[in-house]
Amino acid sequence: MATDTTRSEAPDAYAELLERYGRISSIQDAGGVLSWDQQVIMPEGGTPARSRQLSALSATGHELLTAEEFGDALDSAEASDLDASQEAAVREIRREYERSVRVDTDLVERISQTTSEALPVWTQAKDEDDFEAFAPILEDLVELKREYANQIDPDADPYAVLFADYEPYLGLDTAEQVLERLRDELVPLIDEIEASNADLATPFSGTYSEADQEALARDILDSVGYDWDRGRLDVSAHPFTSGNQFDARITTRFDEADPLGALTSTIHEFGHATYALGLPEESYGTPLGEARDLSVHESQSRLWENHVGRSEPFWELLAPEVEERLGVEATPRDFYEAANRIYPDNRIRVEADELTYHMHIVLRFEIERDLISGDLAVEDIPQVWNEKMEEYLGVVPDNDAEGCLQDIHWSHGSFGYFPTYSLGSVLAAQLYGSADREIEDLEGDIEAGEFDALQEWLTENVHRHGKRYRTPELVEEATGEEYSADAFLEYATEKFAALYDL
Amino acid sequence: MATDTTRSEAPDAYAELLERYGRISSIQDAGGVLSWDQQVIMPEGGTPARSRQLSALSATGHELLTAEEFGDALDSAEASDLDASQEAAVREIRREYERSVRVDTDLVERISQTTSEALPVWTQAKDEDDFEAFAPILEDLVELKREYANQIDPDADPYAVLFADYEPYLGLDTAEQVLERLRDELVPLIDEIEASNADLATPFSGTYSEADQEALARDILDSVGYDWDRGRLDVSAHPFTSGNQFDARITTRFDEADPLGALTSTIHEFGHATYALGLPEESYGTPLGEARDLSVHESQSRLWENHVGRSEPFWELLAPEVEERLGVEATPRDFYEAANRIYPDNRIRVEADELTYHMHIVLRFEIERDLISGDLAVEDIPQVWNEKMEEYLGVVPDNDAEGCLQDIHWSHGSFGYFPTYSLGSVLAAQLYGSADREIEDLEGDIEAGEFDALQEWLTENVHRHGKRYRTPELVEEATGEEYSADAFLEYATEKFAALYDL
Repeated sequence: MATDTTRSEAPDAYAELLERYGRISSIQDAGGVLSWDQQVIMPEGGTPARSRQLSALSATGHELLTAEEFGDALDSAEASDLDASQEAAVREIRREYERSVRVDTDLVERISQTTSEALPVWTQAKDEDDFEAFAPILEDLVELKREYANQIDPDADPYAVLFADYEPYLGLDTAEQVLERLRDELVPLIDEIEASNADLATPFSGTYSEADQEALARDILDSVGYDWDRGRLDVSAHPFTSGNQFDARITTRFDEADPLGALTSTIHEFGHATYALGLPEESYGTPLGEARDLSVHESQSRLWENHVGRSEPFWELLAPEVEERLGVEATPRDFYEAANRIYPDNRIRVEADELTYHMHIVLRFEIERDLISGDLAVEDIPQVWNEKMEEYLGVVPDNDAEGCLQDIHWSHGSFGYFPTYSLGSVLAAQLYGSADREIEDLEGDIEAGEFDALQEWLTENVHRHGKRYRTPELVEEATGEEYSADAFLEYATEKFAALYDL
Repeated sequence: MATDTTRSEAPDAYAELLERYGRISSIQDAGGVLSWDQQVIMPEGGTPARSRQLSALSATGHELLTAEEFGDALDSAEASDLDASQEAAVREIRREYERSVRVDTDLVERISQTTSEALPVWTQAKDEDDFEAFAPILEDLVELKREYANQIDPDADPYAVLFADYEPYLGLDTAEQVLERLRDELVPLIDEIEASNADLATPFSGTYSEADQEALARDILDSVGYDWDRGRLDVSAHPFTSGNQFDARITTRFDEADPLGALTSTIHEFGHATYALGLPEESYGTPLGEARDLSVHESQSRLWENHVGRSEPFWELLAPEVEERLGVEATPRDFYEAANRIYPDNRIRVEADELTYHMHIVLRFEIERDLISGDLAVEDIPQVWNEKMEEYLGVVPDNDAEGCLQDIHWSHGSFGYFPTYSLGSVLAAQLYGSADREIEDLEGDIEAGEFDALQEWLTENVHRHGKRYRTPELVEEATGEEYSADAFLEYATEKFAALYDL
């Protein structure tokens, strides 16, 4: 690998550290392949063996990372003469090492055990609309994750520590400010939309076969430039992306009554995949070849889903393909309106539109932050959930299954994950705005099905850096601005004011 | 796992050993999933990352197995009070441990490196019919595997040591005797067949779409009782089976001009899968839940392929399905004849019929044995190959691509693997004969599509034991006889004498 200057010119200690880290990283990636297989194509009976395999990989990766030899290699690498990108790689490895080594193996195992148990409990509680059945194990998880945060940093706000598992560098203060602004500015906008008399088009009124929808999804992936030599499209219960710069696969799902759902979800996952595929090949297995965590990842999926996929020029491009594949005749403007309709009475996060989505996140963020701080008891979640739904969206779920039991995240013990969805959307607007200023005629490109310039801009400014920069630095390098919600709020206000004649 | 008496009642030292072994076994199985993915569905570009992942798993498994702690755990388990099946599990772990720990890590890495390099060299040499291009790296591999055998056991015949990697307990003497008998008795039988005037039916003369062939393959798998909740059927360049008692997947391939090829290969792989699926679930991750090596594995695939799939009652069952799926109208007898036609002028092992197949194996066995002993130089392989083809089958390949370069095995350094194919066929006949004596009306069952009794017999006598018995013991437990070629030769002579009016 002649181009791999980060390795070939590196001091021995750095090379040794990368060698050890690469082993761990490959083991984690192997786990990713096994999980993909389990979610996409594994026969049902395979679960017991697969669980054993995944635990073995996870335990082995953890042991290699927390081994004394690894700590020594890290110390030696830090003490050697490194260039800036090598320093960044070591910084990221140090961070991962510290967050692993500070947590007792016993606690890691208890968390793993409890989340395994929680998943079927949550599934059944959701099926039976029985929050009380889920509450006790959720209390255990809150307690365990509080202890986990405490072991990592006893002096920090525990929720901030948990949040940093998913977004390490933006900081909880920034997250809170952004989410507060979204709440304060989007709630009135959504109210205005609800009060508006605008009549948006609804061209999709029939049912559309899975085969036709899949053909359309593949057309769209062809149009945006998905590299099929390094990817696949499959179907799974929940769409997701899995992989690396050599093999980044996406999944989608089809609902015969809702072709827009499959379409936007496919473009969303394409955005995730294109980030993975834009990471530098020669840095595979090092932090410089890994994506910069969840909020930046979500910025890529949301940029493609919303700023490209829900734009009017994109529907100029797509209208003929939709007519061909689904037999729906409508103007690009009609499709554009359909793709941007706001549904304030929707109660389900994963079905939410571009605006109300953030209210679902704000609500979850406020609840989980208060859960971890102890200001909210688990038993009070349903009531608080419904109050906040009423306050932010003016609707109350009919039951907890469609309310506080709807998401899988808490059963995984993933407190602090939700905010990254909104932080990523906000960043998407900022990055898109910057690309739009720097690319001569981005809207024209989209309408013409020319995505090379946008791809290159994203690769150059985001993907190729891997974890070289901390999140705020990455944003500043890419846009010349500090991370902020301004671009998103401006974009959203302008777009929906026009759509809804506000 | 209440039924797992081997673990729950085990002494602590044994439990600790199984815990460590289970980790290694799960890591190896994870590698199996990654290999399956690579051969079946991975996008082409994924190779570099996949190679890194597979090496990481393989190196990690090797390090865990050869670690001092593992050796200590093994010593302690051996010193504790074990029942017979626990003793068997420990015996197998000891065997695997010794074969790993005796070989220098440096040599393991050199073999791994050289086989990686050899694969593309072999591929190109085969494509270009250029044995000389492959010869130097083949010489290196012979030398490395000789050294490998020497490190495992300096006092033993090196080829016997290599052979034992694939078939640990039958012994090279037995293999030699069986292969010599096959050569001595089948060569004249094949000669007689060639001289016969019998005119076997050829009902398959058209082309048959892949979709129709796949539908037929799925019908057949339904008929023989493949458990789709624990398996899949996919397509790959070379058919293979991968998995364990929870998830055993098969692949096949389709040739529009040769539906019999896909059909027999599908049943063959089903035989492998059914062995994996019959292993005890509660012993997953221990030697008692693993298949008894390659010759026994091949006995299961050959039993289903030949003794079931090439039998007249099976074609009574299948004829209507073949007519429905492929539109071929013929009598069961015609299909039976077509499935059993002998082609002495075929030069390609994987396309060989039930008799000439063994001559391909004998030839490879004699060559690789002499290569390892030093009695044959690599450069002389093409000449010896062609002489033996002439001697055993009366044909000479047109070129080395269809001669000594046709198989991938030597590029993997897999010397000693080939004999297990014939040893397995021989065992298939012995096991089938025994099942046939013990099941009231096995032929009637097959014709009626009732495979439960045969499945149960195989599970009870072979599958459920895992590695509990050494191969000769397993054969004696199952059949009441010593391992021998008698049953196969009797079966083959009788069957083909009848078919060819000898």
